[in-house]
Amino acid sequence: MERAGRSSTLGSTDEVELEPSGTSATIHLDMTTGGGSSSSDFNPFGAIDDVRFKTDEDLPDALAPPFFSKYGDFHTIDWQRDLARDRLRHKLISKKKVDFPLGLLQSGWDAGAGWICVLFVGLAAGATAGIIDIGARWMSDLKTGVCADRFWLDREHCCWSSNDTFFKDDECKAWTKWPWMLNYYNSSSFLFLFLEWIFYIGWAVAMSTLAVLFVKIFAPYACGSGIPEIKCILSGFVIRGYLGKWTFIIKSVGLILSSASGLSLGKEGPMVHLACCIGNIFSYLFPKYGLNEAKKREILSASAAAGVSVAFGAPIGGVLFSLEEASYYFPLKTMWRSFFCALVAGIILRFVNPFGSNQTSLFHVDYMMKWTFIELVPFALLGLFGGIIGSLFIFANIRWSRFRKNSKTLGGNPIYEVMIITLITAAISYFNPFTRKSALSMIQQLFDRCEDQTDEDSLCDQNKALSIAFGQLLWALIFKFIITIFTFGIKVPCGLFVPSIGMGAIAGRILGITVDQIFRSVQATPGHSEYFTCQIGKDCVMPGLYAMVGAAAVLGGVTRMTVSLVVIMFELTGSLEFIVPTMVATMFSKWIGDGISKMGIYEAHIELNGYPFLDSKGEYPYSTVASQVMRPSIHRQVADELSMSDLRELKNELSVITESGMTLGDLEGLLRQTDFNGFPVVVSQNSMHLVGFITRRDILLALHTARKTQPYVVTNSIAYFSDAVPDSVPGGPAPLRLRKILDMAPMTVTDQTPMETVIDMFRKLGLRHVLVTKNGKVLGIITKKDILQFMRNKNSQ
Amino acid sequence: MERAGRSSTLGSTDEVELEPSGTSATIHLDMTTGGGSSSSDFNPFGAIDDVRFKTDEDLPDALAPPFFSKYGDFHTIDWQRDLARDRLRHKLISKKKVDFPLGLLQSGWDAGAGWICVLFVGLAAGATAGIIDIGARWMSDLKTGVCADRFWLDREHCCWSSNDTFFKDDECKAWTKWPWMLNYYNSSSFLFLFLEWIFYIGWAVAMSTLAVLFVKIFAPYACGSGIPEIKCILSGFVIRGYLGKWTFIIKSVGLILSSASGLSLGKEGPMVHLACCIGNIFSYLFPKYGLNEAKKREILSASAAAGVSVAFGAPIGGVLFSLEEASYYFPLKTMWRSFFCALVAGIILRFVNPFGSNQTSLFHVDYMMKWTFIELVPFALLGLFGGIIGSLFIFANIRWSRFRKNSKTLGGNPIYEVMIITLITAAISYFNPFTRKSALSMIQQLFDRCEDQTDEDSLCDQNKALSIAFGQLLWALIFKFIITIFTFGIKVPCGLFVPSIGMGAIAGRILGITVDQIFRSVQATPGHSEYFTCQIGKDCVMPGLYAMVGAAAVLGGVTRMTVSLVVIMFELTGSLEFIVPTMVATMFSKWIGDGISKMGIYEAHIELNGYPFLDSKGEYPYSTVASQVMRPSIHRQVADELSMSDLRELKNELSVITESGMTLGDLEGLLRQTDFNGFPVVVSQNSMHLVGFITRRDILLALHTARKTQPYVVTNSIAYFSDAVPDSVPGGPAPLRLRKILDMAPMTVTDQTPMETVIDMFRKLGLRHVLVTKNGKVLGIITKKDILQFMRNKNSQ
Repeated sequence: MERAGRSSTLGSTDEVELEPSGTSATIHLDMTTGGGSSSSDFNPFGAIDDVRFKTDEDLPDALAPPFFSKYGDFHTIDWQRDLARDRLRHKLISKKKVDFPLGLLQSGWDAGAGWICVLFVGLAAGATAGIIDIGARWMSDLKTGVCADRFWLDREHCCWSSNDTFFKDDECKAWTKWPWMLNYYNSSSFLFLFLEWIFYIGWAVAMSTLAVLFVKIFAPYACGSGIPEIKCILSGFVIRGYLGKWTFIIKSVGLILSSASGLSLGKEGPMVHLACCIGNIFSYLFPKYGLNEAKKREILSASAAAGVSVAFGAPIGGVLFSLEEASYYFPLKTMWRSFFCALVAGIILRFVNPFGSNQTSLFHVDYMMKWTFIELVPFALLGLFGGIIGSLFIFANIRWSRFRKNSKTLGGNPIYEVMIITLITAAISYFNPFTRKSALSMIQQLFDRCEDQTDEDSLCDQNKALSIAFGQLLWALIFKFIITIFTFGIKVPCGLFVPSIGMGAIAGRILGITVDQIFRSVQATPGHSEYFTCQIGKDCVMPGLYAMVGAAAVLGGVTRMTVSLVVIMFELTGSLEFIVPTMVATMFSKWIGDGISKMGIYEAHIELNGYPFLDSKGEYPYSTVASQVMRPSIHRQVADELSMSDLRELKNELSVITESGMTLGDLEGLLRQTDFNGFPVVVSQNSMHLVGFITRRDILLALHTARKTQPYVVTNSIAYFSDAVPDSVPGGPAPLRLRKILDMAPMTVTDQTPMETVIDMFRKLGLRHVLVTKNGKVLGIITKKDILQFMRNKNSQ
Repeated sequence: MERAGRSSTLGSTDEVELEPSGTSATIHLDMTTGGGSSSSDFNPFGAIDDVRFKTDEDLPDALAPPFFSKYGDFHTIDWQRDLARDRLRHKLISKKKVDFPLGLLQSGWDAGAGWICVLFVGLAAGATAGIIDIGARWMSDLKTGVCADRFWLDREHCCWSSNDTFFKDDECKAWTKWPWMLNYYNSSSFLFLFLEWIFYIGWAVAMSTLAVLFVKIFAPYACGSGIPEIKCILSGFVIRGYLGKWTFIIKSVGLILSSASGLSLGKEGPMVHLACCIGNIFSYLFPKYGLNEAKKREILSASAAAGVSVAFGAPIGGVLFSLEEASYYFPLKTMWRSFFCALVAGIILRFVNPFGSNQTSLFHVDYMMKWTFIELVPFALLGLFGGIIGSLFIFANIRWSRFRKNSKTLGGNPIYEVMIITLITAAISYFNPFTRKSALSMIQQLFDRCEDQTDEDSLCDQNKALSIAFGQLLWALIFKFIITIFTFGIKVPCGLFVPSIGMGAIAGRILGITVDQIFRSVQATPGHSEYFTCQIGKDCVMPGLYAMVGAAAVLGGVTRMTVSLVVIMFELTGSLEFIVPTMVATMFSKWIGDGISKMGIYEAHIELNGYPFLDSKGEYPYSTVASQVMRPSIHRQVADELSMSDLRELKNELSVITESGMTLGDLEGLLRQTDFNGFPVVVSQNSMHLVGFITRRDILLALHTARKTQPYVVTNSIAYFSDAVPDSVPGGPAPLRLRKILDMAPMTVTDQTPMETVIDMFRKLGLRHVLVTKNGKVLGIITKKDILQFMRNKNSQ
């Protein structure tokens, strides 16, 4: 093994200051600064991210108190370090508890802070969801007309408040259609319909254009669903501004506009993003959370649960979604708090009551019939379909997104893209009753029993209307599938839940109608089995249930959710009876989907965007040990397995700092020559026995401070990371004591540790790096990015 | 800072060997033995438990294939090692996938094994629960009489099948009361009632005595609730026979007997234990799970979910219970499978339909009214009450259990204890209509709305009957509280869920009636606020809802469950509307309870029994670093903080094995002189640089085999744990190569690592031990038991 780095020049030194001789050197309980601030002499864990990829640009020049809670943009946080900081803070406060009454109050406030914070988040998330729902509803109706007297009312409330008699299709005189404004009243004339169509398209394009302009000008992070990024952020990635107030405001407004424009997108994914923005904003009221990235993620996990809760009216499903999909580090304490947050948000939304109904669930169904066991076959078929169409969707969408990313024409003109997609969507969907109405009311119609519906519902007619509706459904399914591929990813706020549920509901209803017809025809023949017996005058099967099951299947195929999906569907519809069909479909959908491709849409987008996300569910199917992944790589013999870019990387050698003997000048030179984010500290260059780890940021700060405050520290001063600082030699330069900034507890693994174990450590302990040792000697370092890059190289072979 | 321990003599550390140029030295994919078996030359991880506490007695004399999957009784498993073994097995099978068709089939079987196994478990758990429910119902009715024609029918079915006209209280002529057998028919005579009372007591005592005899004679592990032990087992503890078939059979029979005897105990906790027994038994059909303790626990987690699912009819609650309470290591894949298992079990139970009802939930309620916000105050009060009474119960029960444990009179005579408790319970509860009936029907009555109930129900009468019932409830509450303290822990199968729910339901109903009366009297006065308005002819408040909330509060106070409790209550009652009151009560109960004492009943029993359970929720509030906890302790300066027993321990020194140079005789001597379960392997005694780790079991086996099969290996042979084995010197003894059995990837931490981080590693990675190093030298070792002992010493100060 070749070892580079500087040789240690052991010289004489001057003693400058005495070091505290505490037993537990890393924890000073006599610290006086409480809250989220910390003084520079406490650093139980070093911080390092992508050690050899980035440098910190925004280094503060002074030792500002919370300096080491700051992470660079696109950096990964160090969970263990942040949690240790929080424990220290907690211990300080617990110690003060005896100081009556201030200490006790502070302790109480500290204990309750998390609950108060999620309470606020829940309240705000519920209110936001309510406002967005009301806004989107009003704007969506604006495409057809406006309320004559009170323009701020949507069609339904307009008709209610005017006390007009309704005529066909929930229409009323108070609701002024756009052609009426131009004095065309004959609603069956071609010109009237044409004008209505033009207005419909015009409003849609105007709204979506406004949305994309807002996003482009004010908050570029406000586009898309946000869930892939939320997953990364919750896993410890820092994206500055992604959860900021501008993103929140623009995404809220943009979401109203984009969902009102009739594009094939949902409000639900962005609701999760918005809730996380709220969580982030409120966390700054509580230094415990605002100044500690790891603790902040507890609030964000709860916020994500609240987001799903308000999106679907499913608090339990929200918590499980947060647990299963979004969160990475999910202690049980967080689960309980998330549940509280989700529940508060749900209650507030119900108070706001945007839909004017009193139902507890978004789509309330109340099937009176029971399903029979033979129906599990079509349910499984729906699952199969969901898995296939989901994978197909992911494949096509990712291909298109990659094309968008790489194409200058498309990627450079997001506004035109949005306008064209909206134009096509509006122009085509106008002619199909199922795509013309809002996705939510379409889904409700598809889920409903026939008995509940009005006579005009073509889906429940057994005559010619049904076959027309059948054709319309088939057409709607194809249209929705194609247009959603192009829509998911455009630069407006857009979610994927509702389009997926919509596609699934259409497919399910189609199958339901088919099965129903089969049952009817079998029943009409003599000598049929008892399985095919159905009550006279009723549906043989429940096509609405098929729609529900289909919705779960396609959503499962696209997102690969499992438990949370079943629970959300259950809460969505409020019927525990139908948990088995949903589960069967979800299971088949998951199996088939995973058989085709392991990645759900969010994981695929994470990979597309190259986020450093170490999937907690993924497997690592290579027989590798730590020494093969670490940098610098010492295994030249495996070099042929690596790509060219890796070979270039191989030239990097491990830069270490010796415990004693390096001068200030040496250190500064090392910092200049390398851009690593941290350095192992060893006993000597010869032995390479590990002493500790130090981050670039800490060492820069320390040197800077020393140069500024200790004038006798000069370039020739020797830096000591050990306790054994020799007495100052008269005439020689003063020694610099740096033990305090040394992380004495770096995580290490041996070179022969299987990579599965290493990855397990990264995932479960939230590490940023581990040092690889052999017989006590440092060999190299593994960061999260090394692992991801190794996996990517392996996969791309 | 003072440094003790071995001084580092930086001499010429003989670089004994060159680094292996193999890529993945620890993983041999050319292994030919598939399935769950493994050959001796694969050992990616060493296994060690309580290094200095136990030795293995049951060492096999030959290298039986699955030898290293076996753990000693009361040992802790090594998750990382077991999971690595499973990954290896999986890779082998994946490799064989190309061998059409056998390899493909095997691969498919392997992939589906988990699902098939949990399917079986679900089916069996559902069936078992159904049989137990039916059996307990029949035997419970046996206390009052017997079905004349068909003795195998319970009272309800007896009356149904005889087509008799019912008279008061669901009684019929076909159901022969015991006094009738003795020709006493005048049911109002004193003698009749006395005889009935005597028979009631006699049957109760007979049943419980039978139960305790079964337990004592056939399966001592079948007693109690089993949940504390299940928690330990799922956390990686091995208790041989605890989940065996005998325990299963005896616990099933005993559970029928004990719950029929009318003791204040529930079937629900033991159902979880029974489901885990089923999981354990079925796992042996699948070597993947049966021969791998870590993988087996995935099945056991799913089984626990199924247990709760059948106990309460709550599949989602079951999964969350398994996640929140029972399981330790709960990957998301397991969650989905657990859900499946829980659902299957629930469906089967519904098929068996032990209660003859068609309800989906155990206690179906359908409150038509809504609760008002002012009612949150009494709900919070119920939570407060639940927290206090729960803590009180835990305190008293633990005191009594400790007394039982230490007292020879009580502990030595479990049969008499059971008989006396049953005698008291039966004799007293006979006279109170609420305690006389089965706990489940009492709870149902307390939960019910008044409108649903028969006119005779005293709880809904607004006249004198109510005040009598009020008194009876109060009396029942006090009685239940006291008797349950003495009952939980006797040597019959006994759970705590239903008694807790019962107590809570009584308390809640009492409060509900009180609040109802207050509302009524306020309403009767003029000028009352609108909050107090209630509909004429109906209850002002719903006392049944109060009972439900009270049940959640007390159960929360006793068990400290949170999310799973709310979800179980919600599934139990099927009403999403009342999730908020339940949550409020649970929250207050948890806060108050945790304020009084952090431990729930299960944790308290775990501590009482001294199981090595490292609570994943607990905090570690000490400012300690690894070197202060490790053995041998080098920090003499902290010795005054430790107890005397620790001082004795301090004399232990770390026994190490050197990489080369030790003879067979040396090794055998070391094994004889110490009883540690494993030894660090170092480069040399002087340098103490860590090479690897080896377990006592592995080294014993290797020496044994070498002595047996290699006759040229003698006592003077030098054992080499390195690759650099010198050529055998002619005349000298043959060297013994032991590198293969060396664990090259032991987990290490530095001496300055905060204990919180170490504990986090133990919890999340499922470790059995870590080695403590400093500058690459081994200082000591920390095992799970060291941590637990340290915490106990700290707590007991």
